[in-house]
Amino acid sequence: MIGFAVVGYGYWGPNLARNIAEIPDARLTHVCDLNKERLAKVKARYPTVVITDSLEDVLRDPHVDAIAIATPVSTHFRIAMQALMAGKHVLVEKPMTSTSEEAKRLIEEAARRNLVLAVDHTFVHTGAVRKMREIVENGLGEMYYYDSVRVNLGLFQHDVSVIWDLAVHDLSILDYILREKPVAVSATGMSHVLGEPENIAYLNLFFESKLIAHIHVNWLAPVKVRRTLVGGSRKMIVYDDLEPSEKIKVYDKGITLSDNPRNSGEKIYEMLVGYRTGDMYAPELDITEALSRELRQFVSCVERNEKPIVDGNAGLRVVRILEAATHSLAQRGRVVELGQARMIA
Amino acid sequence: MIGFAVVGYGYWGPNLARNIAEIPDARLTHVCDLNKERLAKVKARYPTVVITDSLEDVLRDPHVDAIAIATPVSTHFRIAMQALMAGKHVLVEKPMTSTSEEAKRLIEEAARRNLVLAVDHTFVHTGAVRKMREIVENGLGEMYYYDSVRVNLGLFQHDVSVIWDLAVHDLSILDYILREKPVAVSATGMSHVLGEPENIAYLNLFFESKLIAHIHVNWLAPVKVRRTLVGGSRKMIVYDDLEPSEKIKVYDKGITLSDNPRNSGEKIYEMLVGYRTGDMYAPELDITEALSRELRQFVSCVERNEKPIVDGNAGLRVVRILEAATHSLAQRGRVVELGQARMIA
Amino acid sequence: MIGFAVVGYGYWGPNLARNIAEIPDARLTHVCDLNKERLAKVKARYPTVVITDSLEDVLRDPHVDAIAIATPVSTHFRIAMQALMAGKHVLVEKPMTSTSEEAKRLIEEAARRNLVLAVDHTFVHTGAVRKMREIVENGLGEMYYYDSVRVNLGLFQHDVSVIWDLAVHDLSILDYILREKPVAVSATGMSHVLGEPENIAYLNLFFESKLIAHIHVNWLAPVKVRRTLVGGSRKMIVYDDLEPSEKIKVYDKGITLSDNPRNSGEKIYEMLVGYRTGDMYAPELDITEALSRELRQFVSCVERNEKPIVDGNAGLRVVRILEAATHSLAQRGRVVELGQARMIA
Amino acid sequence: MIGFAVVGYGYWGPNLARNIAEIPDARLTHVCDLNKERLAKVKARYPTVVITDSLEDVLRDPHVDAIAIATPVSTHFRIAMQALMAGKHVLVEKPMTSTSEEAKRLIEEAARRNLVLAVDHTFVHTGAVRKMREIVENGLGEMYYYDSVRVNLGLFQHDVSVIWDLAVHDLSILDYILREKPVAVSATGMSHVLGEPENIAYLNLFFESKLIAHIHVNWLAPVKVRRTLVGGSRKMIVYDDLEPSEKIKVYDKGITLSDNPRNSGEKIYEMLVGYRTGDMYAPELDITEALSRELRQFVSCVERNEKPIVDGNAGLRVVRILEAATHSLAQRGRVVELGQARMIA
Repeated sequence: MIGFAVVGYGYWGPNLARNIAEIPDARLTHVCDLNKERLAKVKARYPTVVITDSLEDVLRDPHVDAIAIATPVSTHFRIAMQALMAGKHVLVEKPMTSTSEEAKRLIEEAARRNLVLAVDHTFVHTGAVRKMREIVENGLGEMYYYDSVRVNLGLFQHDVSVIWDLAVHDLSILDYILREKPVAVSATGMSHVLGEPENIAYLNLFFESKLIAHIHVNWLAPVKVRRTLVGGSRKMIVYDDLEPSEKIKVYDKGITLSDNPRNSGEKIYEMLVGYRTGDMYAPELDITEALSRELRQFVSCVERNEKPIVDGNAGLRVVRILEAATHSLAQRGRVVELGQARMIA
Repeated sequence: MIGFAVVGYGYWGPNLARNIAEIPDARLTHVCDLNKERLAKVKARYPTVVITDSLEDVLRDPHVDAIAIATPVSTHFRIAMQALMAGKHVLVEKPMTSTSEEAKRLIEEAARRNLVLAVDHTFVHTGAVRKMREIVENGLGEMYYYDSVRVNLGLFQHDVSVIWDLAVHDLSILDYILREKPVAVSATGMSHVLGEPENIAYLNLFFESKLIAHIHVNWLAPVKVRRTLVGGSRKMIVYDDLEPSEKIKVYDKGITLSDNPRNSGEKIYEMLVGYRTGDMYAPELDITEALSRELRQFVSCVERNEKPIVDGNAGLRVVRILEAATHSLAQRGRVVELGQARMIA
Repeated sequence: MIGFAVVGYGYWGPNLARNIAEIPDARLTHVCDLNKERLAKVKARYPTVVITDSLEDVLRDPHVDAIAIATPVSTHFRIAMQALMAGKHVLVEKPMTSTSEEAKRLIEEAARRNLVLAVDHTFVHTGAVRKMREIVENGLGEMYYYDSVRVNLGLFQHDVSVIWDLAVHDLSILDYILREKPVAVSATGMSHVLGEPENIAYLNLFFESKLIAHIHVNWLAPVKVRRTLVGGSRKMIVYDDLEPSEKIKVYDKGITLSDNPRNSGEKIYEMLVGYRTGDMYAPELDITEALSRELRQFVSCVERNEKPIVDGNAGLRVVRILEAATHSLAQRGRVVELGQARMIA
Repeated sequence: MIGFAVVGYGYWGPNLARNIAEIPDARLTHVCDLNKERLAKVKARYPTVVITDSLEDVLRDPHVDAIAIATPVSTHFRIAMQALMAGKHVLVEKPMTSTSEEAKRLIEEAARRNLVLAVDHTFVHTGAVRKMREIVENGLGEMYYYDSVRVNLGLFQHDVSVIWDLAVHDLSILDYILREKPVAVSATGMSHVLGEPENIAYLNLFFESKLIAHIHVNWLAPVKVRRTLVGGSRKMIVYDDLEPSEKIKVYDKGITLSDNPRNSGEKIYEMLVGYRTGDMYAPELDITEALSRELRQFVSCVERNEKPIVDGNAGLRVVRILEAATHSLAQRGRVVELGQARMIA
């Protein structure tokens, strides 16, 4: 039985608490937040859980084996580091930290103490993304592009740009479904509110292969869109996360290249590129709540001293890209190389 | 009565011919193409029209007042220049020419001879784009972004990249609906077929204001998408050209900025940005075929010696951006300034 | 402060309990169910609420002013009657009772004791249906038809046909938005599982005017559809309850009838009927949770001794149609008159 | 080489003419219409075709082997009978005739003279309907229901109700995809324009099996819908004819019935019915224009003296249902038996 504390009970914390409470092998022991109203809600909902505004009290309690951190990004490093130093296993909300330097120090600390350090890249645990990885590994052929649109109206954040808020989802998905890692990144965007970070942005990821990845994120769109196109040499995928079912559609479409074009003037090219169309299918997806699945796996890792699916290195790789994209954004899209990130992967 | 010749009877030429044949003040006199099968089709369809593979014959005929050019881009300049020099008014398919230098020479020649030179930016004449311009000028407020997705499977072209084929539509729309002109452009993309031009590309247009424009074009997508989001300070638009009706949806949505935020710690920001939602409406659109409207206006310009809505300068401005984007594409998105284009506008 | 007991904690009861718990003027005092596991969940969720499997205990408690009944339909009458006889106000789940005779007896008992008797026609309290009624009363013109499709896969019920489960929603909406009441009903349908009630059915409602209402309900459909078309002489509505926003779309479309047709052979008719198209708009809707709104109004009715929006008579009118439809269903759609229902309305 | 005359050049005639003109083994010899403007259009389009307003001239010409009739329904019988008596093969627009009596006489006359008599049930020749039949025959299992919605705004007809105009499509599709024939029909509907036939109607078809078919047709709908749900014991189909591709979606969904329910009170039923979900797929469809395919087959039947896919008996079966539905419509949906229709099938 793993004792679990949730630190931060704002938007995401309640989801963590609810799912932890339902895991047979875990027990929700503490919820920690600075806001008294939030803590009162916890008490009404989970009468037996200890509520507190003192992180120290939580970390001092020997019944606490692990903590889940759902506080603002800028506090992730400090809280996670304290927890690791107190000997607690850590699951930290995405993005892992504000800087790659911080991420590296957490990785080292966890390794030194032989503690589980996991990053909550929730999408990686959805049925849709897991199916997408399956298709990418077996059926898609060579991946040509990954194009994602993730836009809606609100919620403007004030400490980080829309990239850290929304693009992080696609970066975590890409880190999970691709074997190859990006070598460079560029980003353009704009802030339309004086003094605020960028509310619209476009990211390009460059790879050593011919793969190109592009992510459009926007807090100021009239409609909500969560739609990814993935093009491969043998199949193509449309992943629409707002579809109630049929989130993943796999198209047996593409181009065919002719081996022996007749060399007869302008017709040569028309023979080279042909088009192939076939059936579309929408595979049935596992509809387990992603966070439930993720927390069960985290508990299992703690119990068996195993490495989680999304470990500190995965979190670091994503933070590196976010950092580089932020640099690029400030320079109208100058390409920023990601050299070291590749070595870690 | 304006005598009209169509040069080039491939994909677009038949549409030009059909619409010219239906204009009361115009007469389709010639169709010129190098392909005999195509000419035979013309004869079957329009028995009284002269068919020929000789441009010279067409230009020599005094019954021909104007020519419509629908040949490959690389031939636009030569044919249009010959036509102007023969004293014919010219309507040339988009993109106007392969280079801005060519475009400038056509503009000068037409001006010298007092001939009408128009570029066939067909979308500008659709009910949807005309309505969009009306809203942009009256109701949208300050424009924040223009984001367009124009993707489908095929048709790969071999002489020009997907930018010249598809992004040209958005560039022509932007040139029409915006008073402001872009100051710089960047583009990234990839060719997935050896030896062929880029089949996927992303363009950014930069402006002196906070407007940002972005265009995604792709010949290798599993689904067809023609969807533009336009964000303004007072309204937002979704323009979906594949909707059978309701192509334009106007959302009374956006953010509101508070004047007097309470200065109380972190709450200050949450007061600054508020969200506004209201009705959506889809205005009724003029459903006249765009090409018919355009050709009637061209004929009217010829008759009254007036300037067309899309003149040579509009065509040149679009070609300049295409040129700059092509340079940027070769350098992984380096920003290319558009200095001179602004002077012309 | 109104003391509230919830009887029945299966599918709908938890929603009642949650919303009651959040009303300032109400207090959730008891939850009553025969199932011990369900009661344990209540205890965990609401530690201060009394849980019991004894209806008598609930009705005997003087802190209970009102009860909300969410048990199987066949038990509604007995429980509601006991509650009324114990002096409790009653909110009963739809359909109100199994027979119109039962409904009438409840109405009489509530009237005799001056108690509030309300029926939980939840849809009536949604922003979408309230907006629809507003348009029907002001703008739609004469209503021509109401056509509703309410289909999905599951959940097969075993004591009542799909009509009592799904068509009841449309009947309650019609009762709310129309001044006119139906005069007759017919229904066809089929059971595809031996020994089970009909899982697919089609209802027709006939009116004295030219209005025709039709409802398609189906537990065995591959996709979920919740879509209603409403045609009027001046406007038409599409109400799609699965749209995340824009559930109501109002079309300025219809036919126009010419007064002075030329009397010239077959052309006469073509002049009589013209088509009118205009803008479409999707009004902003109140997004308050319908059940919350409904329960607050119920509490207010109890406090002020007022009549609820959906009273026993509304419940009775719907049950009468369900009864008649069930008769018709057994006779391949024979029309069943609803004479007496009109007198009550 | 089959000589072909088209009689009637209104809405559908031009499609017949265009497709006939493109068949290698056929020659469009005549177009006959009473309207001179229409004939002038024919002449401009097909300079070598004889135009005439005299049916007699057409039937007298020995170069005419077959005629395609696209005139108003009320004239089908007379024109087809004259054509057969003149020894011409006949393809007649749907619905075949105004009465089943007329249809029977045409069948007899064609049989007596050994001429091909085909009815233009165009949908039967689409890739979508042909695929649907394939699935119905192989994979769907027992068919439970066929539910079709075919609604839009306009075109009101003045001689026939919306049933003869729109429901005829579904009746022809059902006749093609089902081995079983309906035994009875009922229909309800309404006319909202004084003196005009019904503009909205609902049809039920009853079968000896548990299959139920339902068709909703409406000339007064704010949106265009062409959507059919087909439920089977092993698969379910959604056929949406307005989808640009993916018109047919096949769902591996349904119910499962348990063989050995535990006999423990109310739980018995919940064990009986289970729900099965699996992949969805959209098979690639043949995109040949249906009318082209149909006309080629007709020509082939004439050449080889074979029976067409949609012969006079198929046309008659559909007309019988239309007649019965019209009777039912006048009596608020009284069930009308189709006894004799079954014998013909």
